[in-house]
Amino acid sequence: MNFKSDNSGPAAPQVVEAIVKANEGYQASYGGDEIMESVTEGMRKLFDAPDAGVFLVSTGTAANALCLACLCPSWATIYCHEHSHVEEDECGAPEFYTGGAKLTLLDGKHAKIDKGALASALASAAPVGVHNVQRGALSITNATEHGSVYTVEEVAGLAELAKGYQIPVHMDGARFANAVVSLDCTPAALTWQSGIDALSFGGTKNGLLGVEAVVLFGEEKCWEFELRRKRGGHLFSKHRFLSAQMDAYLANGLWLDLARRANRSAAKLAEGLATASNVHLLHPVEANMLFVAMPLQAHVRAMEHGAQYYLWPPNQPILNNDDEIVTARLVCNWSTSDSEIEQLIDLLGNS
Amino acid sequence: MNFKSDNSGPAAPQVVEAIVKANEGYQASYGGDEIMESVTEGMRKLFDAPDAGVFLVSTGTAANALCLACLCPSWATIYCHEHSHVEEDECGAPEFYTGGAKLTLLDGKHAKIDKGALASALASAAPVGVHNVQRGALSITNATEHGSVYTVEEVAGLAELAKGYQIPVHMDGARFANAVVSLDCTPAALTWQSGIDALSFGGTKNGLLGVEAVVLFGEEKCWEFELRRKRGGHLFSKHRFLSAQMDAYLANGLWLDLARRANRSAAKLAEGLATASNVHLLHPVEANMLFVAMPLQAHVRAMEHGAQYYLWPPNQPILNNDDEIVTARLVCNWSTSDSEIEQLIDLLGNS
Amino acid sequence: MNFKSDNSGPAAPQVVEAIVKANEGYQASYGGDEIMESVTEGMRKLFDAPDAGVFLVSTGTAANALCLACLCPSWATIYCHEHSHVEEDECGAPEFYTGGAKLTLLDGKHAKIDKGALASALASAAPVGVHNVQRGALSITNATEHGSVYTVEEVAGLAELAKGYQIPVHMDGARFANAVVSLDCTPAALTWQSGIDALSFGGTKNGLLGVEAVVLFGEEKCWEFELRRKRGGHLFSKHRFLSAQMDAYLANGLWLDLARRANRSAAKLAEGLATASNVHLLHPVEANMLFVAMPLQAHVRAMEHGAQYYLWPPNQPILNNDDEIVTARLVCNWSTSDSEIEQLIDLLGNS
Amino acid sequence: MNFKSDNSGPAAPQVVEAIVKANEGYQASYGGDEIMESVTEGMRKLFDAPDAGVFLVSTGTAANALCLACLCPSWATIYCHEHSHVEEDECGAPEFYTGGAKLTLLDGKHAKIDKGALASALASAAPVGVHNVQRGALSITNATEHGSVYTVEEVAGLAELAKGYQIPVHMDGARFANAVVSLDCTPAALTWQSGIDALSFGGTKNGLLGVEAVVLFGEEKCWEFELRRKRGGHLFSKHRFLSAQMDAYLANGLWLDLARRANRSAAKLAEGLATASNVHLLHPVEANMLFVAMPLQAHVRAMEHGAQYYLWPPNQPILNNDDEIVTARLVCNWSTSDSEIEQLIDLLGNS
Repeated sequence: MNFKSDNSGPAAPQVVEAIVKANEGYQASYGGDEIMESVTEGMRKLFDAPDAGVFLVSTGTAANALCLACLCPSWATIYCHEHSHVEEDECGAPEFYTGGAKLTLLDGKHAKIDKGALASALASAAPVGVHNVQRGALSITNATEHGSVYTVEEVAGLAELAKGYQIPVHMDGARFANAVVSLDCTPAALTWQSGIDALSFGGTKNGLLGVEAVVLFGEEKCWEFELRRKRGGHLFSKHRFLSAQMDAYLANGLWLDLARRANRSAAKLAEGLATASNVHLLHPVEANMLFVAMPLQAHVRAMEHGAQYYLWPPNQPILNNDDEIVTARLVCNWSTSDSEIEQLIDLLGNS
Repeated sequence: MNFKSDNSGPAAPQVVEAIVKANEGYQASYGGDEIMESVTEGMRKLFDAPDAGVFLVSTGTAANALCLACLCPSWATIYCHEHSHVEEDECGAPEFYTGGAKLTLLDGKHAKIDKGALASALASAAPVGVHNVQRGALSITNATEHGSVYTVEEVAGLAELAKGYQIPVHMDGARFANAVVSLDCTPAALTWQSGIDALSFGGTKNGLLGVEAVVLFGEEKCWEFELRRKRGGHLFSKHRFLSAQMDAYLANGLWLDLARRANRSAAKLAEGLATASNVHLLHPVEANMLFVAMPLQAHVRAMEHGAQYYLWPPNQPILNNDDEIVTARLVCNWSTSDSEIEQLIDLLGNS
Repeated sequence: MNFKSDNSGPAAPQVVEAIVKANEGYQASYGGDEIMESVTEGMRKLFDAPDAGVFLVSTGTAANALCLACLCPSWATIYCHEHSHVEEDECGAPEFYTGGAKLTLLDGKHAKIDKGALASALASAAPVGVHNVQRGALSITNATEHGSVYTVEEVAGLAELAKGYQIPVHMDGARFANAVVSLDCTPAALTWQSGIDALSFGGTKNGLLGVEAVVLFGEEKCWEFELRRKRGGHLFSKHRFLSAQMDAYLANGLWLDLARRANRSAAKLAEGLATASNVHLLHPVEANMLFVAMPLQAHVRAMEHGAQYYLWPPNQPILNNDDEIVTARLVCNWSTSDSEIEQLIDLLGNS
Repeated sequence: MNFKSDNSGPAAPQVVEAIVKANEGYQASYGGDEIMESVTEGMRKLFDAPDAGVFLVSTGTAANALCLACLCPSWATIYCHEHSHVEEDECGAPEFYTGGAKLTLLDGKHAKIDKGALASALASAAPVGVHNVQRGALSITNATEHGSVYTVEEVAGLAELAKGYQIPVHMDGARFANAVVSLDCTPAALTWQSGIDALSFGGTKNGLLGVEAVVLFGEEKCWEFELRRKRGGHLFSKHRFLSAQMDAYLANGLWLDLARRANRSAAKLAEGLATASNVHLLHPVEANMLFVAMPLQAHVRAMEHGAQYYLWPPNQPILNNDDEIVTARLVCNWSTSDSEIEQLIDLLGNS
């Protein structure tokens, strides 16, 4: 009964098999392996983007920070949600890789950037020329850190605002698969057709051991990306083991299947908890995560029975009052079982 | 009738004379000049801090950014007011010099950090360990960017919060003289006795041509500061010309005299405008600056008659409605004359 | 017949099995997994260093650059061989991670730093104080990039020079196992007992898929290392898959077995080529690599028969003269077979 | 009798007068002052470059580092002489401002880059693609750190090599005036007409208090330069005091007059010492500096009689042998008097 994170669960068996299979004989190193050719081809086809640059790294933080470094100069600012991963969970990696850019934090419900907030921030930026950091890039997280999903139109609307100021747009797609499944749209529609210039295409949270793809829609920044990746220590020598994971992930729509399972589990859990009058959902459940408010007693009972998840925000003070309410994050992954879900509903609900 | 900035006015004649006088024969370069010995001695006496490190640079941005780089590691955050100079007017210099630290923006009336806001930000920082940037340093601006002044107790209160988390405290004293004059306190009381570790001791806004001192209360960071200063291109070869300015500034309390004049002018202007029912002060006038709200018509009239100042915030949209109100910043400097003040009162007031 | 790189070969089967086995159920992420506890314990035992900090990353460049960033401030210089990996093959990663430190390039035969060259560089460093970068750290590569190995005494001798100037010492041990096997010494003797403060303990070149350990001898820099690792995007979420590899590597001396095989293959190849009068060894063969000079014809013949290796240096011009000599690097790995070796001897030799 | 540095001497009286004169009333700050318009116009005329960007900073290190940051990405290398100021005397400022670029050190007589050495370094750069830092920029110092001067043809020859690899060229002209006077060429011929893209146009060593101009030949990098200057803390608020110095420097050819005096003094000193059989010139005297080898006794005698100069290299060990030879640097500046020169000739010579 583990709902801690999509990082805590196992990798998909097909992916592990692909690694085992890739471990035969010699392969060119540093991305020159044959499997990578297949990955590049597959990704370009998937995105209907024959000129896209496709690169693999092993962590989402690396994918995001390297993308942002290519898009945003050091004297500029990155517009992002105040509850985005780049702001809250990367120990300043974007600042490090950009050479000291700022992050301008925007609010908006359910961790989605409010369009008005972005418009206003862009309009009021750099009022006194050289004294201010300049408009740099927009970064959108989809699915968001609160389990909600931007629609294609919402992405396009935000990107259009950015393009009005000639700044590029990044999508942190650590849970991109969950968003695509949720929206039932094409990957192209959700990215370059909506104005996205660079995508962190997540894999690790959705069944890989540790691989994320970066997809650059346009050739201009590809060589710079490669140099920054190497310089950041993110170019794998035995690269075939990254390629093999991503290749298996793309094959036969595995990436969508895995996300579909995780999303369905979350929906099932949400449905079950909806019947419990003591548990309240804090955000719409559009991907694979739930955020709930519930009585402390329900939480204590769940813990005692072995449920695993994080109170969220993590540093929430517990006062132990009788009528105390706590808030928690419940994450499903591709391997979450129905019985785990039912157990948790039983424990948290007040039926 | 120029109220644009304390940077637009002239330098004090004593300072220019000191430069002329310093231009005789040979002097050791790079801070080894004899005048600098006098500056160091004078500053230590002034602050009752015999071990303080004293260093000169030529801009306030350099002073602030170098201090913060010594106090805050790259993986940490600097707590500062959302309307501080380090955030709004240095094009990311703190981020550049620290190697990519964050700035955590706090609110509070009149550009003074709200104590509760700081307490809360410190308490909720770094909830998930290594994933977050760490608590780095606190930076207090005194006098503030809105012309208000922290009392000694207020500074001590904020610093105490920071010290509770073992982080050091910087004071941006670009208008330190104005604050000291306003509070009628000792420089020591307002700094190290209240928990300040590093001070940007401003000179340029108060009658120098372009010199700021950095005063480090404690020897630990002095050598690092010197290396960072050189590496940042801020070590003057003909250093005597910086020393001479600062030496004249400290001599006979000139620095306080100049600030006293500027503060008095601001008080006089405030008093005059107080009688005008159409002009409203937005912040307490405790140093040398006023922020006012007034009818657009008053502003237009003032401009037509040659008054010079900035609308504030700078990118304020003007709609030209009949009953439109604009907000402006009016800065006095040591050379502001009574007649300038009277003229401006006449122009802005509705008498 | 692939002698291109120890990066081109496969991973050891035990390691792949460990990955498969690790892929069960849930595990704490980001290094909190149980397997990592075993790795830490194993590594401390191996090095007889109960307080050592042990951290995993996925590339050698990351291991080196993160170590050096912890040891060397941005205003200092790293002493290293002119043919070291940190200088030649990391696209400036040490400069990036340190925030712009210099690398001072030293010569010495067979890619081993000449003791006199180091002594002289250290003695003449920073002659004019603040104007120069300062002495920062020493970085020793063992085994070297030319296949030679520093003895314990040689390491201790170089480290002692560094310690005479109070600067720390890093060992790039991307081929540490090959060095230990070659010297038949304890890991402790070759590292902390000889003055090493931080070790990049290689795995990827010796049978892992992509894992290097960083071993810090002393607790002082451990937290900083963790923050820099996260900030660099090098902290794996599904960390268990790194742990599993390293755990299998340490178990039952696998790491030494694999290196022993590679070293033996290199020795066998060297022995075979020694009988060929047209091929000359350029460096002593003390680890798993050979550098040879040979007639262009021999090289062409080998290529035509499917031998794979790099001419070295890589950008060597080929003039196609009759008596032309080319130089090449031949790398053995744990999986190199005797038949491959015999074939290559046949092709290159003039028998 | 001070031959320590062109930084130890006084500023020219015309320059100090210009500062005094500039200190009247209000002036726009941050480079918006009227005097700066005159400087820009004057500089463009001087260089016959109507579109050149002209910017002022206060130190040569800032001028160089900011130029190089605009020209060279962080993942590339700057080709420069091993005895250049950017390598030896800026505490790593180019590394800091570029975000960690390398400096590739070239040799060549008299601190002039050997053309063959540059050709060879460029040809052999980045042999293995992404693993290496890339070719970034060439930096030429004219006059050199050893008092020699590149001819127009020599500059053009080096720049042509760089342009063959599409990399830009910077000239460190801290002693540009001395070079122009020595060559009797036009500023245009020595710069953009020979392939220079960015020039540090020195003033401080030649009679200013502390001003250097940066001249960018081409508009592409101008806005970036301005942002980097601000972000580096190098944009003066009371900018008029920089403008006034540079304006006086350009007026009536003062900059050339001052350099002519300094060069003449050096020539006179060289001529005098040439008659002394115990003193040997180490480099051609083409600007305002001499480097001499002489008996320790001559040096001791000179010191005892109050001569001031540096032994060079600075950390030269003195053994006090009877026949010991020491080497020294003797720098003339615009204010060096004939009597000082005669005195020094008397003291050092073996008459």
